[in-house]
Amino acid sequence: MKQVVLRHAIDHKPRAADFELIEAERPDCPDSGVLVKLSHISMDPYVGSRLRGRHMGEAPPQAGVEAIPGHGVGEVVESRSETHAVGDVAYVMEAGWREFAAVPADGARKIDPEGLDRSVFLSSLGMPGLTAWAGMTQLAGVGEGDMVLVDAAAGAVGGCVGQIARARGAAEVYGIAGGAEKCALVERSYGFDACFDYKAEGWADQLAARVAGRLSVHFENVSTDMLTLALSNFKPYGRAVLCGLAAQYHADAPPAGIPTGLIIGKRAKLHGLVVYDFYDRWDRFMDEVAPLVRSGALTIAEDRAEGLEAAPAVFERLMDGANVGKALVAL
Amino acid sequence: MKQVVLRHAIDHKPRAADFELIEAERPDCPDSGVLVKLSHISMDPYVGSRLRGRHMGEAPPQAGVEAIPGHGVGEVVESRSETHAVGDVAYVMEAGWREFAAVPADGARKIDPEGLDRSVFLSSLGMPGLTAWAGMTQLAGVGEGDMVLVDAAAGAVGGCVGQIARARGAAEVYGIAGGAEKCALVERSYGFDACFDYKAEGWADQLAARVAGRLSVHFENVSTDMLTLALSNFKPYGRAVLCGLAAQYHADAPPAGIPTGLIIGKRAKLHGLVVYDFYDRWDRFMDEVAPLVRSGALTIAEDRAEGLEAAPAVFERLMDGANVGKALVAL
Repeated sequence: MKQVVLRHAIDHKPRAADFELIEAERPDCPDSGVLVKLSHISMDPYVGSRLRGRHMGEAPPQAGVEAIPGHGVGEVVESRSETHAVGDVAYVMEAGWREFAAVPADGARKIDPEGLDRSVFLSSLGMPGLTAWAGMTQLAGVGEGDMVLVDAAAGAVGGCVGQIARARGAAEVYGIAGGAEKCALVERSYGFDACFDYKAEGWADQLAARVAGRLSVHFENVSTDMLTLALSNFKPYGRAVLCGLAAQYHADAPPAGIPTGLIIGKRAKLHGLVVYDFYDRWDRFMDEVAPLVRSGALTIAEDRAEGLEAAPAVFERLMDGANVGKALVAL
Repeated sequence: MKQVVLRHAIDHKPRAADFELIEAERPDCPDSGVLVKLSHISMDPYVGSRLRGRHMGEAPPQAGVEAIPGHGVGEVVESRSETHAVGDVAYVMEAGWREFAAVPADGARKIDPEGLDRSVFLSSLGMPGLTAWAGMTQLAGVGEGDMVLVDAAAGAVGGCVGQIARARGAAEVYGIAGGAEKCALVERSYGFDACFDYKAEGWADQLAARVAGRLSVHFENVSTDMLTLALSNFKPYGRAVLCGLAAQYHADAPPAGIPTGLIIGKRAKLHGLVVYDFYDRWDRFMDEVAPLVRSGALTIAEDRAEGLEAAPAVFERLMDGANVGKALVAL
């Protein structure tokens, strides 16, 4: 089978040239497990730091051999488990950038793609959606009257944050994204009240003019600087969810921290979020979010390419923030 | 009457020489208000930054004229309010460093000092106690099984934090303080399980050896560095209350912030605390904490001096962290 692996160990922000496409042995179906033929593979920002050994203490995959971490969706083609039948469609946490994944039965969550493109199970109905749902509903407790801000708003997590907040009754929803194209997507397709382009001059002042002293919920995907800016626009007792620091994963120097006095002055509440902790609430997440996706109330754009050989280039675009919407590869 | 005022406007950490004792006009009892003859005046760390105009945006008192901010306890000697009688004992928020305070009736909260030294209404049953109570019970929600850490543990706020946590069923209570004398007080008199002397070599390693990965609640009085150290010893989903930054109030350069990635990795929850927000829960605070004080379950040492003329020296000791226990002046 075809598989993409690291060409060499790396200690920099991954580039397309760091990967290579190889011919690997097609794995056997494991005892009590399943063999899944992957149809879609997810590209996620955290993988960039994972490949450098900077994510949650996990070792990077061995160059030339081990699978690149990545979730995927596919069809069961062999099953040695009573819970799965050939033909079942499944979401696979440890898919890898390859054509086939051999996993234990509980590593292939059966999904119902009826009427949906399977790729939504990598975005709004996959880990990004769960991340957004956990932050908005389980930590920040977003609800009626809230004024919400999220950065990386054109991405899958950020886009879901705003749309889930809206579905929960948030009064106003604002985004931050890089570039006019992303901001237009966030406003027109995702339905945010406004999206601020952090590459445009004066954007922080425009944001403040719109929301200063009124923000009650913020979701952070990007950096401490963005978080500090959001906090400075908080009303008292606002809640911030700290999820990702995509702009800092590849920084050479340790970035500045959050000003403690600002948290005190704003009486803010900050929540650290690691999505793994919420896997056991998957069914509750699906019960709430799947109807939004099916009705069209929640939509996420895709930065999609065809064929495994396209994965390195898609991933480089993601690392550069050049993707618009959820980055994925269809096989 | 005697009164202590600023000798000149200052922009440094206040020293005793920055104050002077003057003879001022004894104020009249205001319409609908009371005149209180003060018996005890509180000295608090936040006043140091207040005098420099660095506290919550409030202007410093005018040198040579205006009262130094400070809470006090005293006896009503004149009343033009139906709610207060001559002889009532009252806690006065805007007392000042002077012999008499003329305040509106609702600025003099009647207290029941029966069987207690009035000075406890400036520590465990005053603003420091309310601060600790709010942080432990209203924000962190401390309870059975919690492992609690607090710094400036020999002070009134820190001492109350640990003892209120214990009364609420915390499993283990730890303190950080500067010097062997303070640590001995915290362990022997306040009953903490251990107190770590941050002036002693290797103290942070000793703290980690005792609590690493097990702390569930922290209360911050001192600095971002201390907070970061506490967070690094957290178990997942620990709660930190951010209350004061006494070591940073007089720093010339902006201090480092809190590392955002640490908050995420620990799934920590941080709460900013401003005690003013909890004045309306004063009765609930008294219902819970006064019995602890009366029974002797909660005790706070005092760094006490006699006579208004001693106030500047007591305050300088407080600014240097040389006080042991609650700093106050008895008139």
